[in-house]
Amino acid sequence: MKKFYIAKARRLRGTPFTSRIESQGLTAYTTYNHMLLPAAFEGTEKEYFHLKEHVQVWDVAAERQVQIIGKDSAKLVQLMTCRNLSNSKVGRCYYAPIIDEQGNMINDPIVLKLDENKWWISSADSDVELYAKGLASGLKLQVEVSEPDINILAVQGPKSFKLMEKVLGKKITELKFFAFDYFIFKGNKFFIARSGWSKQGGFEIYVENREAGLSLYDELFLAGKEFNVKPGCPNLIERIESGLLSCGNDFDNGDNPYECNFDKYIDIQSSIDYLGKKALEKILHKGINRKLMGVKIDLDKIEMMEERVLKKDKSVVGHLRSAVYAPHFKKVIGIGMIKKEYWDKKTSFEIEINNKKNKGIICDLPFKM
Amino acid sequence: MKKFYIAKARRLRGTPFTSRIESQGLTAYTTYNHMLLPAAFEGTEKEYFHLKEHVQVWDVAAERQVQIIGKDSAKLVQLMTCRNLSNSKVGRCYYAPIIDEQGNMINDPIVLKLDENKWWISSADSDVELYAKGLASGLKLQVEVSEPDINILAVQGPKSFKLMEKVLGKKITELKFFAFDYFIFKGNKFFIARSGWSKQGGFEIYVENREAGLSLYDELFLAGKEFNVKPGCPNLIERIESGLLSCGNDFDNGDNPYECNFDKYIDIQSSIDYLGKKALEKILHKGINRKLMGVKIDLDKIEMMEERVLKKDKSVVGHLRSAVYAPHFKKVIGIGMIKKEYWDKKTSFEIEINNKKNKGIICDLPFKM
Repeated sequence: MKKFYIAKARRLRGTPFTSRIESQGLTAYTTYNHMLLPAAFEGTEKEYFHLKEHVQVWDVAAERQVQIIGKDSAKLVQLMTCRNLSNSKVGRCYYAPIIDEQGNMINDPIVLKLDENKWWISSADSDVELYAKGLASGLKLQVEVSEPDINILAVQGPKSFKLMEKVLGKKITELKFFAFDYFIFKGNKFFIARSGWSKQGGFEIYVENREAGLSLYDELFLAGKEFNVKPGCPNLIERIESGLLSCGNDFDNGDNPYECNFDKYIDIQSSIDYLGKKALEKILHKGINRKLMGVKIDLDKIEMMEERVLKKDKSVVGHLRSAVYAPHFKKVIGIGMIKKEYWDKKTSFEIEINNKKNKGIICDLPFKM
Repeated sequence: MKKFYIAKARRLRGTPFTSRIESQGLTAYTTYNHMLLPAAFEGTEKEYFHLKEHVQVWDVAAERQVQIIGKDSAKLVQLMTCRNLSNSKVGRCYYAPIIDEQGNMINDPIVLKLDENKWWISSADSDVELYAKGLASGLKLQVEVSEPDINILAVQGPKSFKLMEKVLGKKITELKFFAFDYFIFKGNKFFIARSGWSKQGGFEIYVENREAGLSLYDELFLAGKEFNVKPGCPNLIERIESGLLSCGNDFDNGDNPYECNFDKYIDIQSSIDYLGKKALEKILHKGINRKLMGVKIDLDKIEMMEERVLKKDKSVVGHLRSAVYAPHFKKVIGIGMIKKEYWDKKTSFEIEINNKKNKGIICDLPFKM
């Protein structure tokens, strides 16, 4: 597959850590929320095996925060998501699909409640800030919506716990999954959550002071030598195996949260008020005709730039949206939007790439390892 | 300067023309509105000279349309922009800054009025669709907001008129600047505007039918041989020389339209209603302390990933936001946000890059050639 360079510009913003990762062997970028997001160092497969055994530090500053402050902040956050946040607690993270009035997906962020009147929406790749601004202006809500200069460092992998304990002290090991708290490093306070876009365990450090963040970054690599720490990035193989969805890849504004298997994050029973509630009621009543499922394909490589049709005889089974060669399965695995008639596991299909037909089967998400 | 690859994924959507440009010598991409936008073929300088003399076909599908249809569509479009659109005409394009309630920039699209109740907002790189959706839901407006599958081909350069006449007939030469109309090619109707992101003249073809678009694309190259047609892309040298601003590069949500010299697109006199009107009144009353201006720097290359400080002695003169080496000036030229004390033309400054200080001067936009 032919490779192309990325043309840099201020519009694709660098992060505080860009110069570090570029001198640490970065080879490829993607962009995300108008920012550079590292995409490869030694190669996705090598990085996959390393992530599952050791520890990596990821520059995921591109995971931008939409900050909502003010008297009506809880109301605005709830208006945008179908997840019931009425019993949410300060100090906790909530995976919360953001939808529009038609009940279609806009984003799948982590919502962090810092205070009754202060929230961060840790966003996937779409301008949730503009949606929030439009709503706030339209409804004359008393809120301030902004994108503060917060740059996340993720520390991921099974040895992340030992590394973080060594650098930040015993207390960090007591942090529960999807909880956050403040921790001190060299006199600077860091907001840290036990979270991250892998299923290998780890933390996300919300760097609010760039200089202090760089000092912590360097210390993670210094202290991490004994744990075989490496720079890394969200890993396509690991995230597909784990069934972690990617906004813009696996779903977009043409899909609703039921089709994305987000049922447990949808509340249409209680009295909470959010956009798209009526639309979701209708969708639930009618039932969905397609949903995201796993697929396995007899191929040893694949490139995805747009969805690809999956067929059985002459009928469309569904559309493949993300895919990668997974060494564990010795096949390409992927996530596809599959029509109801084909939800039976082990449905076989064909996918045509470069005029060659390849066989595949449907399976559950996450993949059984 | 070290180069990095771009990692492809469905999230960075390909266009109908991606396979064409990749086989025509593309070397680099940028991303724009969650889509691939070509950034280089033979190199910015070679392409600059070619664009100014011949004709280029650009895949600018990334310039997405936000379509607003319905009874309240004119109201919603006007709410988002400080430009007075109350006398706007069907069949015309309007450059219209989009701002938020605080009077800060969100986008600088071309607004196209297709009908009293049908508008396209041809957007720069931010999700105007989400801003419009938030506003529409908040205000319960009777509109449909969507991103239709429209993919723009720009035909730019002095020979674009001859090429378009050859392919589409005499009538296209009668199209006035910033007007649009429908034209027939091989039985397919194409929406074409006399517009484009260069000052070399040309057209933008809003391709609504992918297959027909590819056929037209191929014909433009076939018929264009005698005009030395080449594939191209928005050219950094040409657009900076011409003073064409780039959203996300030259301005962002931290800047207001007065600071961007958009005075003639701001109406605070009439009774039109838009978000940020009160904020702009205050800004006008108080006066601005900085604005975008041109700069020339004694350098033969530069890379921009974030704004760079311009200093005079120990004082900050302003910040450089876009810059490129311009062969005409045998210098780096750029666009910077300059503090009021330094608006006097020919103010000199220093810019430090890699620990080396370089001299520069302030000048007007667009650059005098």
